[in-house]
Amino acid sequence: MADQLDVLRQRIARAQGVMRERGVDFLFVAPSSDLVYFFDLDAHASERLLLLIIPKEGKPQLVVAAFERPHAAGKEELVELHTWQEHERPIELVRQIVADVTSPTIGVSDQMRAGFLVGMLESIPDAAFLNATGIIRELRMVKDEDEIDKLKRAAAMADAAWEEFVATARLAGKTERQAATELAGLRAKHGLEVTSLGICASGPNSAAPHHRTGERVIQPGDSVVFDYGGKYQHYTADITRTVHVGEPSEEYRRAYETVLRANETAVPWYRPGVECQAVDQAARQVIEDAGFGAYFSHRLGHGLGLDGHEEPYLVKGNTLPLRAGMVFSDEPGIYIPGRFGIRIEDSVVVREGGGEKINHARRDLVVME
Amino acid sequence: MADQLDVLRQRIARAQGVMRERGVDFLFVAPSSDLVYFFDLDAHASERLLLLIIPKEGKPQLVVAAFERPHAAGKEELVELHTWQEHERPIELVRQIVADVTSPTIGVSDQMRAGFLVGMLESIPDAAFLNATGIIRELRMVKDEDEIDKLKRAAAMADAAWEEFVATARLAGKTERQAATELAGLRAKHGLEVTSLGICASGPNSAAPHHRTGERVIQPGDSVVFDYGGKYQHYTADITRTVHVGEPSEEYRRAYETVLRANETAVPWYRPGVECQAVDQAARQVIEDAGFGAYFSHRLGHGLGLDGHEEPYLVKGNTLPLRAGMVFSDEPGIYIPGRFGIRIEDSVVVREGGGEKINHARRDLVVME
Repeated sequence: MADQLDVLRQRIARAQGVMRERGVDFLFVAPSSDLVYFFDLDAHASERLLLLIIPKEGKPQLVVAAFERPHAAGKEELVELHTWQEHERPIELVRQIVADVTSPTIGVSDQMRAGFLVGMLESIPDAAFLNATGIIRELRMVKDEDEIDKLKRAAAMADAAWEEFVATARLAGKTERQAATELAGLRAKHGLEVTSLGICASGPNSAAPHHRTGERVIQPGDSVVFDYGGKYQHYTADITRTVHVGEPSEEYRRAYETVLRANETAVPWYRPGVECQAVDQAARQVIEDAGFGAYFSHRLGHGLGLDGHEEPYLVKGNTLPLRAGMVFSDEPGIYIPGRFGIRIEDSVVVREGGGEKINHARRDLVVME
Repeated sequence: MADQLDVLRQRIARAQGVMRERGVDFLFVAPSSDLVYFFDLDAHASERLLLLIIPKEGKPQLVVAAFERPHAAGKEELVELHTWQEHERPIELVRQIVADVTSPTIGVSDQMRAGFLVGMLESIPDAAFLNATGIIRELRMVKDEDEIDKLKRAAAMADAAWEEFVATARLAGKTERQAATELAGLRAKHGLEVTSLGICASGPNSAAPHHRTGERVIQPGDSVVFDYGGKYQHYTADITRTVHVGEPSEEYRRAYETVLRANETAVPWYRPGVECQAVDQAARQVIEDAGFGAYFSHRLGHGLGLDGHEEPYLVKGNTLPLRAGMVFSDEPGIYIPGRFGIRIEDSVVVREGGGEKINHARRDLVVME
């Protein structure tokens, strides 16, 4: 625990350094990956205000419901505690904590509930609010080897679930929900904490990249996209594989091969100094050259860490240069409306010599029953 | 679907009525239970802006990433669509939609990401923002019989999982996480969509009402609190049961009996016209009279529906009178720091003649191995 406290202290100190550079007086860290990062607390983002307030200098303050005080157990020395009773207004505590600074500039967790921010606008009317992610991403976007190790272990669990799934499952006749639930069982079996059902998108539904898994019955002739993940020690797995039920057409094979080639072509581009948008373009070019350009309708990827999607993003217009230790998804796709969709997604670590893939589950075209 | 569209139209029209009464120009409905309520869309609250904008009169507007347009499938006639590409700034679409109104008053979903609200403060600087829950709770807090039926089915699934769990599980030697995972498997087996692991709090941990399920090994002599739920057709189950591993002490039995009596004493108070705080006080009095008053450290309960916790709350200071069709938790507890905690939670529908409990899993003191 002492080690962990030191890690948290260092993270807080680094944030305070960035805050001073940018003239930010306070960070408001709400339950989310940000609170895991700074306080090792994976708390539910509920209607009860729980807020770590990091000033640009000095000790952080923790506002917490009195009965939730055990959230700070073992970490009391890191913070000054401010507890509130069920019938009290915790926002008043927040107001008092920042009252020493006139017209404070306050960075708020991107994932804080907007309802709390509305209350703060009223209670701290002279404050200027900004999105704390601009600061926090400076710390979080480059992962250390301990973080990368956890991401690798999460990825290995997702891979193992997939290998067992394709070796044992039958799809035709199952609903998307049933298939996704079966895969979720294997994710749990292989050690992942399952936090959502994930996407199972079949047949025409597979052409919607963010289809909501539903009651459609999977049939021969379907493309079926599985996009899923889970957590290992707060770090996230995120993988997508696409299978075909029964023999695919030549056109489908050509589309699948194109997506796979785009996925693999991008890998060497995951190296320091390359702009985020250039990685996207490297994969996109493969799909455009094959004549499917109009059907790759989303960015190539997102940062991966404590969150499943986090800064930075591999998207046109993002000129941020990659740095060693960043971790991203690599997830090109082709989606032909009304017919089929294909996506192949791996997690990739930015390394000096080019990307290191940390997913290894088979990605050749698998035909299932 | 036509029926469902009519339900959504009616809900939107009712919201617009309340908005006009209160001088609110727009509701910004973000992915959350609010978006399920108004648009039957259970979308992930991601970093990509997805926003239903309900004006006080006329057609709602839906801002959605172009590739997520299938989220509106079958419901296009309800909204005007505004799509954005991955490299564009969707907040600009939002600005344009509200531009006709000078200094608009805008209610935002409580659960919208604060990061989006920060962007709106900058893009729509003349707007006044408020928490939309003040409006939306007027619609959502009283459930119709269709909603109550779904809540009952969810409750029955949670009950069935519990009955099977206490009949089959052994606790001693398992970690909290293992025990919670076993119960999660039964929740899924009985039809609940499992959205989180839930709380398993053992021994001294059980004295923390919101303990985070962890790696502590359960031992003879432990009180073990299980607080869990899940979803059925978007509606929520939420139940807590407490068991003892091995024979409990007389003091423990007396505390358990007190919590159970508080839970049951409150039931007749769940009737129209009673103030929220009076229900809390009815249960609290039982615990105070038994000498455990200092150890009941949280409110008696919360509203239950699409969210696990929603307005209104049964808490000191809340003078809102109950109305028939509201649904709440009834969850008194006793938590003795460092030693043990006990909580017994059922869901209760407010009826003319007093509360109707919709959880029926056994709530006598169960001794497990």
